[in-house]
Amino acid sequence: MVRVILLGGGNLASHLAKAFSNSSEIELTQIFNRTLSHIIDNKDIAPVTDSLDELLEADICVICTSDAAIDCISQKLMHKNCLIVHTSGATSMDVLQNKRKGVFYPLQSFTKDAVIDFSKIPFCLETNNAEDYLLLEKMALAIATKVYTMSSVQRKKLHIAAVFVNNFVNYMYHIGEDICNKNGIPFEVLYPLIQETAEKIQYLSPKVAQTGPAVRKDKKTVALHESQLEANEKLIYTLLSEAISNNN
Amino acid sequence: MVRVILLGGGNLASHLAKAFSNSSEIELTQIFNRTLSHIIDNKDIAPVTDSLDELLEADICVICTSDAAIDCISQKLMHKNCLIVHTSGATSMDVLQNKRKGVFYPLQSFTKDAVIDFSKIPFCLETNNAEDYLLLEKMALAIATKVYTMSSVQRKKLHIAAVFVNNFVNYMYHIGEDICNKNGIPFEVLYPLIQETAEKIQYLSPKVAQTGPAVRKDKKTVALHESQLEANEKLIYTLLSEAISNNN
Repeated sequence: MVRVILLGGGNLASHLAKAFSNSSEIELTQIFNRTLSHIIDNKDIAPVTDSLDELLEADICVICTSDAAIDCISQKLMHKNCLIVHTSGATSMDVLQNKRKGVFYPLQSFTKDAVIDFSKIPFCLETNNAEDYLLLEKMALAIATKVYTMSSVQRKKLHIAAVFVNNFVNYMYHIGEDICNKNGIPFEVLYPLIQETAEKIQYLSPKVAQTGPAVRKDKKTVALHESQLEANEKLIYTLLSEAISNNN
Repeated sequence: MVRVILLGGGNLASHLAKAFSNSSEIELTQIFNRTLSHIIDNKDIAPVTDSLDELLEADICVICTSDAAIDCISQKLMHKNCLIVHTSGATSMDVLQNKRKGVFYPLQSFTKDAVIDFSKIPFCLETNNAEDYLLLEKMALAIATKVYTMSSVQRKKLHIAAVFVNNFVNYMYHIGEDICNKNGIPFEVLYPLIQETAEKIQYLSPKVAQTGPAVRKDKKTVALHESQLEANEKLIYTLLSEAISNNN
């Protein structure tokens, strides 16, 4: 039984509170938030408090606040003997000044009110000693199945990769939708292709899966497409086509 | 019962032959290919031939060859009275010089040997008269459920949109994989995020679904990421981040 205190009242904290309280491996000892009203709905699953001075004994404190608040909260936990972890992808472990520290980062974009199935979400774990790693891993495996060891440096690189495969991919969808809207084409025509593209790379490396005029070096089609695009979309089309041609 | 002659021996033709022969609404009258050996395996589901002079009577001839061969084959079918359609996304209907003509374009990237479920693939249909449209639609609905009316102009625009949501998206995956490989991170960590990004836009417009440092105008994170990227990837990161910042 791992005794866990959860600090934070946001979206991720609320999902984690539910998952922890549903696990037989975890005792959700307490939930803290500066604004009590944000966590009061959780009072049936664990004791709630808005005072850091009233924290109970636990094995792990999970700081699940905004990135900016991690430093401040961790300093107020300097007297605690337990493992202190944060849940931020963009924050180094060493922002925590506690003796026993770690990172417990679920890689996913959380949509408010959506049901979250942690068994499908990868968790990236880091600690500064092997014993604490086992403890953190035990907590992670109580609610998740995909658990990875990842250093702060790797996590930063992963965040950049995620910008490409999530934020920039979504922007490609945005441009696709714009082109459809301008031409009276329902965007839903593209859903199956979008889905297939996302699924294919799970069994075929994207380098091998690349198709289209740029990788075929079909300059005629590339030029035809460019001639129909507006300034901004044309710039993107040209840069990405050149990169694909040169990289494959 | 729609009588269909299929012309072509490639990947799509082979998938269509199976689907047509499995439909109770369609009589697959004949399959033609210049090289008989490519279609000989189909001789149990329909008569095969390598001679255009031996084509039987039918309601629709489906030209399912390379784009370059469409013009040539359609000219050799000038004497036929039936509806002549091609299956190319990138080719205008008017490349066909036949009196009754149309387009029957399945929007999907076909992987050789993969099982194709036409019920999930959108078909874009075009003809030059309403009566032929009904005939073509009847054939399409015999094997598909997602059927859209689309002019040659719209189809060209759709092809450009598909380059963004398929080819360019795959290239974003490629860059993401490169960053992972260079840093000892298993690319599979990103699969759930990739999947969620692709699914989300089916209920939320990509314009609304946009997340990440660029849309938050978080210049500090953007600069931090740029400083860690190599020349080519940095160019792409900068251009896309600026476009997202300016467009949202």
